[in-house]
This record gives sequence, structure tokens and C-alpha cells, in this order.
Amino acid sequence: MRMMVVMKKSHTKEELQEVLDHLKDNGLGAHMSVGVERTVIGVLGSIYPELAEELEAFPGVEETVPITRPYKLAGRELKPQDTVIKVGNVTIGGGSVVVMAGECSVESEEQMMATARLVKEVGGHILRGGAFKPRTSPHAFRGLGEDGLRILAAAKAETGLPIVTEVMDTRDVDVVASYADILQIGTRNAQNYYLLDEVGHCGKPVLLKRGMASTVEDWLLCAEYILARGNGQVILCERGIRTFETGTRFTLDVSAIPLAKRLSHLPVVADPSHGTGRWYLVEPMSLAAVAAGADGLMLEIHPNPDRALSDGAQSLKFENFRTLMQRLSVMGEAIGRPLERV
Amino acid sequence: MRMMVVMKKSHTKEELQEVLDHLKDNGLGAHMSVGVERTVIGVLGSIYPELAEELEAFPGVEETVPITRPYKLAGRELKPQDTVIKVGNVTIGGGSVVVMAGECSVESEEQMMATARLVKEVGGHILRGGAFKPRTSPHAFRGLGEDGLRILAAAKAETGLPIVTEVMDTRDVDVVASYADILQIGTRNAQNYYLLDEVGHCGKPVLLKRGMASTVEDWLLCAEYILARGNGQVILCERGIRTFETGTRFTLDVSAIPLAKRLSHLPVVADPSHGTGRWYLVEPMSLAAVAAGADGLMLEIHPNPDRALSDGAQSLKFENFRTLMQRLSVMGEAIGRPLERV
Amino acid sequence: MRMMVVMKKSHTKEELQEVLDHLKDNGLGAHMSVGVERTVIGVLGSIYPELAEELEAFPGVEETVPITRPYKLAGRELKPQDTVIKVGNVTIGGGSVVVMAGECSVESEEQMMATARLVKEVGGHILRGGAFKPRTSPHAFRGLGEDGLRILAAAKAETGLPIVTEVMDTRDVDVVASYADILQIGTRNAQNYYLLDEVGHCGKPVLLKRGMASTVEDWLLCAEYILARGNGQVILCERGIRTFETGTRFTLDVSAIPLAKRLSHLPVVADPSHGTGRWYLVEPMSLAAVAAGADGLMLEIHPNPDRALSDGAQSLKFENFRTLMQRLSVMGEAIGRPLERV
Amino acid sequence: MRMMVVMKKSHTKEELQEVLDHLKDNGLGAHMSVGVERTVIGVLGSIYPELAEELEAFPGVEETVPITRPYKLAGRELKPQDTVIKVGNVTIGGGSVVVMAGECSVESEEQMMATARLVKEVGGHILRGGAFKPRTSPHAFRGLGEDGLRILAAAKAETGLPIVTEVMDTRDVDVVASYADILQIGTRNAQNYYLLDEVGHCGKPVLLKRGMASTVEDWLLCAEYILARGNGQVILCERGIRTFETGTRFTLDVSAIPLAKRLSHLPVVADPSHGTGRWYLVEPMSLAAVAAGADGLMLEIHPNPDRALSDGAQSLKFENFRTLMQRLSVMGEAIGRPLERV
Repeated sequence: MRMMVVMKKSHTKEELQEVLDHLKDNGLGAHMSVGVERTVIGVLGSIYPELAEELEAFPGVEETVPITRPYKLAGRELKPQDTVIKVGNVTIGGGSVVVMAGECSVESEEQMMATARLVKEVGGHILRGGAFKPRTSPHAFRGLGEDGLRILAAAKAETGLPIVTEVMDTRDVDVVASYADILQIGTRNAQNYYLLDEVGHCGKPVLLKRGMASTVEDWLLCAEYILARGNGQVILCERGIRTFETGTRFTLDVSAIPLAKRLSHLPVVADPSHGTGRWYLVEPMSLAAVAAGADGLMLEIHPNPDRALSDGAQSLKFENFRTLMQRLSVMGEAIGRPLERV
Repeated sequence: MRMMVVMKKSHTKEELQEVLDHLKDNGLGAHMSVGVERTVIGVLGSIYPELAEELEAFPGVEETVPITRPYKLAGRELKPQDTVIKVGNVTIGGGSVVVMAGECSVESEEQMMATARLVKEVGGHILRGGAFKPRTSPHAFRGLGEDGLRILAAAKAETGLPIVTEVMDTRDVDVVASYADILQIGTRNAQNYYLLDEVGHCGKPVLLKRGMASTVEDWLLCAEYILARGNGQVILCERGIRTFETGTRFTLDVSAIPLAKRLSHLPVVADPSHGTGRWYLVEPMSLAAVAAGADGLMLEIHPNPDRALSDGAQSLKFENFRTLMQRLSVMGEAIGRPLERV
Repeated sequence: MRMMVVMKKSHTKEELQEVLDHLKDNGLGAHMSVGVERTVIGVLGSIYPELAEELEAFPGVEETVPITRPYKLAGRELKPQDTVIKVGNVTIGGGSVVVMAGECSVESEEQMMATARLVKEVGGHILRGGAFKPRTSPHAFRGLGEDGLRILAAAKAETGLPIVTEVMDTRDVDVVASYADILQIGTRNAQNYYLLDEVGHCGKPVLLKRGMASTVEDWLLCAEYILARGNGQVILCERGIRTFETGTRFTLDVSAIPLAKRLSHLPVVADPSHGTGRWYLVEPMSLAAVAAGADGLMLEIHPNPDRALSDGAQSLKFENFRTLMQRLSVMGEAIGRPLERV
Repeated sequence: MRMMVVMKKSHTKEELQEVLDHLKDNGLGAHMSVGVERTVIGVLGSIYPELAEELEAFPGVEETVPITRPYKLAGRELKPQDTVIKVGNVTIGGGSVVVMAGECSVESEEQMMATARLVKEVGGHILRGGAFKPRTSPHAFRGLGEDGLRILAAAKAETGLPIVTEVMDTRDVDVVASYADILQIGTRNAQNYYLLDEVGHCGKPVLLKRGMASTVEDWLLCAEYILARGNGQVILCERGIRTFETGTRFTLDVSAIPLAKRLSHLPVVADPSHGTGRWYLVEPMSLAAVAAGADGLMLEIHPNPDRALSDGAQSLKFENFRTLMQRLSVMGEAIGRPLERV
């Protein structure tokens, strides 16, 4: 049983029949429970999310009550144990903390190499870098495209670090999947359902950012799209939601981390760089996310953030990144969430 | 001059030089104004939105002040007069009110024909219907695809009503453009920049819904993407934003209508069906949107909303739609915004 | 019956008994309905809002379902017909549109007299003016206090216009009630329950602004406080909610007007001056609010808005106010919501 | 200098004079800087927050730029070093973590005693309990009033724990201050300026919850009210903001903790019980808040949360509280934020 339909006190026989017909027309069964005060119908079968609104528009219906969650593949009901994802020799979701770091956008081979070496040296696990960049203005720098992917591949070849990079269009999924170890879906494409479908059969793990206007439930339904295409390797990434606060660029919703982990078996990481938009909040919010249970972090670093072509104000300098890694290590050991060892 | 950079009182000569170098590196000029208390730099040239954040990360910079808007093509500075769009013999943005109505998703030819005839009979101007449907769950009905487009074309052939329908993927732009008179970009794709690029050279007018987490400025920057590809026929559509209110599905931001019209020359329409998610709010909010200056409305109607496969709770019944059209007509005549006559 | 409690499939006899005991301890009755799949308990008696959360913390409880609304005095269930309030010879909520206008804060007798005469001349119905002013900074001008009330009384004596003015502290209710015809509760005190209690037995009508973070349901519960003290003369005032949009000061939630009128019998007015914070949006949003069903408007006008000590950017000039009244009159006649005639 | 006024390119001499007159009328000085492209006026003297909006309404003004923060007493500019507050032998803001715990509302002496003994035994520092309770419904239990205060005093007498309790009305400040060690201002009274004034001269430390719709800047301006009355002992408390997320009761804004500490010298604590409304999120969010830099926590515990008269769903059971204290201790030692030792 997935949903209960509460009929109005005053409903007629015809109104009841309409509800039963609607369920039947949609291939659903019904279990009636006629009480002294109310008639309640239990809906049987595979309901779809819009059903509640449809039924509530019927004249005889008082209210519907969902009994189980609409995201059955992403939820813990069918799969209670944590999903653990292996990327190269890095394990995500297995109890350790994984750090994905790099530049927001790939700018040059020389610079990306310097960044990759630092990530490796300081103990980071995965290299991030944007080859295809979402920009709020059509007049801004939008990334190097496949040239950027080649630079990332070169950095991987030298350091051995797996690569995570964003894909923004269904037509680019194949090319990005041929270079990347993890495909990233950005917040602005979190509800681009065709793209979710497409990465759902790309054969690579997907890092799915939360839509900036998505509830945790919406977010899990986006993951459900990918899972429904047969790709079970989804990493959720909290990256901040839109609120009225203007002191930060977004509001990093730290409570979404333990909430998503309670509702879903998928690993959850956090992106405090985009989530706050302020470099000086990245360290405290990284520690907070891990303390709240995050399986990893996604960080923006830059050899010279003052000169970065995009998002400079939120990038960590190398020395700050080094310090952060030390603090994560110390805190992680204490609370039983050590940095992943590769 | 597009931006002013206010230096810190205590800035050093080197810090000032860094700012000037950064501007130069990005092809921008500088106009210095050294006051008793402060040094202020006017930035000359075509700045990009991220510049403000980049500069604010420099040690010597106190603050940046934008002087003109970042959306130059969508804004009224370069083009003060209203954009007027002709679709068939319907004029959008010329002072009259245009009604686009139809079903959320095309369900069957018979039903769409009944809807199209009613829209025509009651005085509606454009037929809407979804062939490709965004659904929050992968398990829900997702539209008939090209079959749905063919049904729309048949309805157009019979009634003469132009068609507006959603496109959700770059790969579908050509096929949708071959059937539709207006291509719709939905709220979940409002920042799908590749799709915006693609409809930017499709040769057809585009109805651009506001992202549910987009400010009015963000929204105009999305329009800027389409305009920058050479397509000047963009219709903005306010469809509700995400807020804490749960009594409505979204909060239809009526004030965004006069605000967008003040900032931009593009026509603005409103979608009170999706914006409220409650059929009983569609009439008052339609009247409100037009009273606030909307150039048109996008409405969901359904021969039998209790049975609609999607969004039934927000669809108007035929009789309610007829009443609404009468009230729009009466109010429109009084306030100088009559229904478009074709 | 007010609430249904759905027990878990797997609940034990002891868990069921705990729920029944908790209801009994709180003076509530229970109506059991044991189905094949589920046990459902109907709660009888006068439930309180927190009951749902309390019960959901019990181990055997799956979910609770509210059946009726928690605001019984403010809701239409017990009192379906509209509440109509008489203030002097002005009728609020009787189908006409009432205009309350004046300055945000009383600055001087001379200026308030000029404003009052204009409001009267142009056809406004009620004079507003702030004697006690909420200011976000302790260093700003906070109103003239009782001197301001005396100036308002003088303006009333000359023009015959009833007065609405804000009360901010329980200790001031008596003095404000001795001058004012309507006591206003501001958005920042919308959930100041002691103040709501106090105006609940002041014997005068109360204009209750919506809290900027209140849902429509929260707002009606605030009205419920006043009604529960025996004062049935409550006027609801929509004044904008906090959202992520920064192009306006708040987001005037126009859809809250028809929604509140559907749920409650109380009259609803709108304040587009504070709701938008932009004088150029006041006219379109005034028309929108009335088109959506508002029983009146609250407007800020100022002989010289550039010089106003507070909120100048949102005040209408006299000439704009005059134009707005003409447009309201024309539109109101057309849609059957004429300006109140006194 | 506190603000810069940027004049329009095309401003007239008269428009410039109007701005200068307005500043003079409000006791402010002006420093003119006439550049080739722009005239910029630096405002001298003690500006008030509304000044920006007032000036922007002048025809010749392009924009105003704030240079320093409007909260001068709460900000770090005038007082860079951290404020440290002593309550009994407990030190707040000195680098250790202080735990305030207890029941949401005082229900009975017996129960409060049990709670107080546990708080003491497990290592908590301050006892919380509500005698005056804000409730969203007038029909709900609203606290024991002064009887509740007496019960708190008895619990203090036995355990030695200082007391924090809420005050909701100006008329109750004296009586609450005669029992309490810290007066709490709730989120719904965060902008009740008369109450802020009143606790500003009560002689006791004040715990100021953030308004659920307040930005960090708004919150610091509320603290400014208390500081401006001479009471420098203000503890800021982040307790969650209103967002669109419905999976939690509010969104605990963890990033507001390091942000407020950066902008202000006042200590900052967090309330994960009210902030999430879910008992199972209290532990992860407590750890997160401390990792982000919080000086303390405010927690709701209850001997039997299933039976609590209010907020049961968010209360920790005693055993969960004990576990949390152990984890806080371990993590705190590792990251240099140990639990306060008394």
C-alpha cells in the first residue's frame, strides 16, 4: 500500500465510484475501509507522484496521505545498506572522507598541472576542473571544452588522480564520459531530465548537485532518474540553496546531509566553495559538513585566486587548502571519519 | 563606464597596480579618480558579471559598484522601445492581452481537438500543449513526443491557432521548431545554457519561463543568452518562485511583471496555473497579472480536470475558462489592456 | 473529528495503548478504525497544533492527518459569511475598495495636515501615519510617540478621516486605542503574542500585517489570537514576504489575498508600498491586489518623497496618488469592486 | 566616512544641491569628489540605515555605496577583540563550548528537577526551560509563568546551574530578570524593538535568537539595539531560517555562525533542536555547529519526549543527550574547542 485517500464525510456513492474508476483506469487497485466517520481507500500498485493532486481534485475527496516515499530506488526502503562507490582506488561512501579539489574552470595546462600536483601532495583524492562551464552571462568565459578535458587527462596521467568534471548537454555525455571518472551534473541542470536520463546509461559514476531550489525530496527524485536508467553509482552533492540571506552567495544546507543520508543509501558530499561563495567560510563549513556526516568535500582551489577567471572570491589559496586538509585529518580521526587512504 | 572599483583607504601602490593589471589582462580600460579619502577606478569596456567578485577578492579592494546592467541586449538602455512579436496574426507585446491556453500535456487527438475548438470559440489566441513533459519522477507519464507534436499540428490546421510547446533537449530543437510557432523553455531548463544557445538560432519566437530560483536579473540574463545568438523574439513568462509558503505550489511573483517590463523591452506574460497550482486561484491571479501590466497569460484548461493525467488540480474547467475570458475582456477594456483581436 | 492518526503496520498493542493514553491525558477522545492493513485513530475533542508532532514521535505512529483547520475562529467553517467592519462611516469588507493612505511616519503637524487634506480630497477613506515606528537601526528616527498621535487626531478633527496607526508595545495599547480608530500590528510584531492578546480586548478594529516569514496559515493563527480574546474586528494586511528576490524589498504575495479570503471570513487589504519598496511598482501592484480581490489598500504618500525621513523610496508623490485613485475607480467599476463611497 | 553617493552623469547643479541640503538637514557633512566622469559625495557623520533609500529617490542620484557597516557597536571595527561573558562560573565566548540544555517548557517541578540533575551530571553548563512560551495557536499550552520561574530557581538552587529563560513582553522583563541568569529573546520577538530596548537595561546577559526572516546583518542590528542601551552582554543564537525546504522545520544556517563571528565580536551559539525540528538531526547538527565555530549549543532534552507537552518531536532523550556530550567532548578536544570546564 502506497497511499491512503480520505473521502469527505458528505461524499456520495457516485463520487466514491469516480475515485475507484480513476484508480482502475491507471492500473491501480483499491482497498476500502469504511469507518463510522470516514471512508478511507488504500491505493494498491505502483502509484505516480501526480496521483495525489489528481485525486484531491475529485469532489468527494478530502485529502490523500502518502504512506511510502516516491523515490523507491534512491530510498532506503528497498536498499537499506549504504551504497559504496569505487573510483580508481578511491572509495566513496565507505566511512572515510574523500576530498575532490581543483579549479572551477580549466584555464591552462601549466596551471592545472600545478593544481593537480598540489592536490596530490596534500592528500586530496580526486581532481576537479571545469571544461564546460555554466555562466550566468553569455558574455563570460565559458570553458575550454574538449581541450579542457585533454588537460584534465594529462593531469590525471601525471598524478594518478581520478577526474570529476561537469557535463551540461546530452550531446556531450559521450565525450565527457570518455575522459572523466565521475560526471558532474550542476545545480542548474539538476532537473534537466534528458541529461539525467543520458548519464543514467553512461557507465560512469555521477555526482549530482542539488538544485538550488530543490527540496531534499526533489533531489532524491532527480537521483531516481539516473538510477531508473540502470546507473546505481550516484553521489549526491549539497551545494547551497537559494534563500533571502545575502551575506553568503547561497545557504549551504548542512542539515540536508544527515537528512539525505537517513532517507537514501547514496553517498553525500558537500561543496562549501559554491555553497558560500566566500573563501573565508570554506574551512569552517568544510569541517561542519564532515562533522554532520558528509562522505566527502568538493573544493575550489587556485594558485592565485585574485586572478582566477571565474569564482575567484570563493577559491582557497594553496596554503589555506593545506591547512584545511590538516584540520580535516585531525578532526576526522577523532570522530571516526578519517580522510580516505589510497 | 560600467563599474566602479572603490579601493581601501589603506591600499598600497602594489595593490592598486594588481587591480589595473587584472583589468588590462581582461581587455578592460581604467579611469582613475584619486580623491582625498578614496581612490576610485572606473572600469571601461565590456565587463563580464564575474568581474565584481574577482575584483573584490583583491586585497586592496573595498567594494565594486555596478553602474549599468549586465544584460545589455535584454535591457532598455540600448533599446528603449517595447519589442513586439508577431505569431501568425497574433501580436504579443503591442498593448493588448494575448491568451495562450490548452492542456498541460497532449493526451489524445480527440481531447486536444475539443480543447483547441474551445480555445478558439472562447477567444483564446494561441494553443498550448506539452508533447515533451518535465516530470519530477521518472516513473510518471512523460508525454507523447513527436506524436504529440503531430496532434498539435492537426489542431492548428483545424482551428488556425498558433502553437506553443516546450522543448527540453538540444537534440529536439529542430523537430519542435518544425511544428511549433513558439518554443517554450520550462522553469527547470531556464538556466540550461546549451538549450538557450540552441533556441537562440532556431528562427522561432521563444517563451522563456523564469527559473523558480531566479531573480529578475538572473531571468534577464537567461534571455540575454538567446538574444546574443541573434534571436530577438523572446517572450518572458513569470511562473512562480520557490518560497516558504506551502498554501500555494509556488509564489506567483506578480511584482516581477512590472519590474521586468521596466528593466527590459521584452513582452512579459504570466502563468497562474503553474504559479499557484490551485485552480481556484487561477481567475483572481489572471486578473491581477493583467492589471499589473502582463502582455498575456498562459493557462491550463482541461475538459475534465479530475481525470487529467498531469496537473489536474490546477486546470480550469471549460466553463471557468469561459467566465475568465469574459472578465478579462471587461477589465481589459476598462484599463486600456483589451484582449488581442485577430 | 479533527485529526486522524495512522498507526504503523507493525505496531504493537503497547504502542497503540500509549497513543490512546496520551490522548486521554490531554482530554481528547479516540475513535478506532481497525482495517485489514492499517489501524487508524480518529481524535475527538479540541486538539492543539503541537499534537501532530507529539504523536508522530511515538514509536507506533506512522503519520497524522489533520482533517480540519487549526484556526477555528478565523476560518470559514464556523462562520462562512464575510466579516464586515464599520469604522466611522467607512465599511471594510463589504464589496467595495477602501483606501488607507498617509505618511509612513508623522513628521510635523503642517505636513500631516497637507497629507490628510489630499487624502480626503482625492477620495481616500482612512488616514494612516506612524507615531511609533519600528526601525531596523536603534540610531534611526523612531517616531514622535504620543505627540504624533495628537497630530493624527487633529488631522482627523479637520478632515473627518478615521485613523489607523501602529502599536508596538503592550504598554502603549491603551494610549493608542484612545486616539486611533484602527490599531495596526506590524510585520515584526505579527507573532508578538502578548501584543496580540492585548489588542484582543482593546475594543477597536485591528489591522494585522502578515509576518514576513509567515505562511497564510500562520497568519490566520495570529488573527486567531485576537479573535480568541473576543475582538472579532480583524483586518488582514498582506505586506510582502521574504524571498531570494533582491529587485524588490519584499515579494508582495498577491495570491495570498484570494487564498486568505477563501480560508477566512476576515477582510483582506494589501500594502504595495512596503511590499515592493519601490514607488514605481505601487500603482501596478495596487491594481493587481484589487483585481485579485483585496478589500482595500494601504498606501504611503508624501508631499515630497525625496525628503521623507523614512521610506522615501517607496512613497507616492501626490500627483501619482491622484492618478492611482482615478485608475482604481475606473477598474473597480468595471470589475464590480468600486471604491467605497462615504 | 560611512557612505558614498554616486551622482548621475547628467545631474544638474540643482539636483546636486538638493542632495547636499538633505544631508545638511539631517546633520550630516559631505565631501565632494568631482571626477572627469562622475561626481561622488562622501557622507560624513552618523548616518542612519534609511539614508541610502532616501538618497536613491533623489532625481540626480545614480546609486549609494555603504562603506562601513551600520551596526557599529556590534561590529568588529570599533571593538576587534571577542566579547567574553561570565555567567556564574561559566565563561561564554572564551574558546570553549558551553552547553545550555533543558526542556522547551517547564511542565512540573519533579520533571524539571530530573532534567536539571541530568544536565549537571552529564556535564552541561546552563539550564534552559520555558516559563513563558510562544505558541502558534492561542488554544495551546502557553507556559506556567512565574510558577515556572520558581521551579527553575529551585532547580538552580539544587544543581548550581545558571538559568536561561525566555521573556516575551516588556512588562515581564523585571520579573524574569529577578530569576534568570540569561534572558532569552525568541525568534518571533527578534525585531520587537521595545523588548530589545527593555532588556538593554536589565543588567543581565541576553541570548538573542535570530529572526527566522532576518539576514545576518538584520540580526546584528537587533543586537545593536541592546548594545545601544548599554548592555554589552549579548549572546547571538542561530536557530534556523525560513526556506522552501519542508523536510526540516527550519533551515539551520550553519554558515551564519562563522559569518557572524567574522563581522561581530559577540559570542554565537546554535539551537539545532528548534533549527531542525527533528530529534535525529540534533546530534549531527550540534557537531556541525561546533566544527563551524559555535561558542555553544542550546538543546532540548526531555525525560520522555513522546509525552512532552510541546516540541516533543525535536527533543533528545536522556541517553541520546549523554552520547552527544561524549562526542562533543572528543571532537572538541581534537579541534581545540573543548567543552567548558567549570
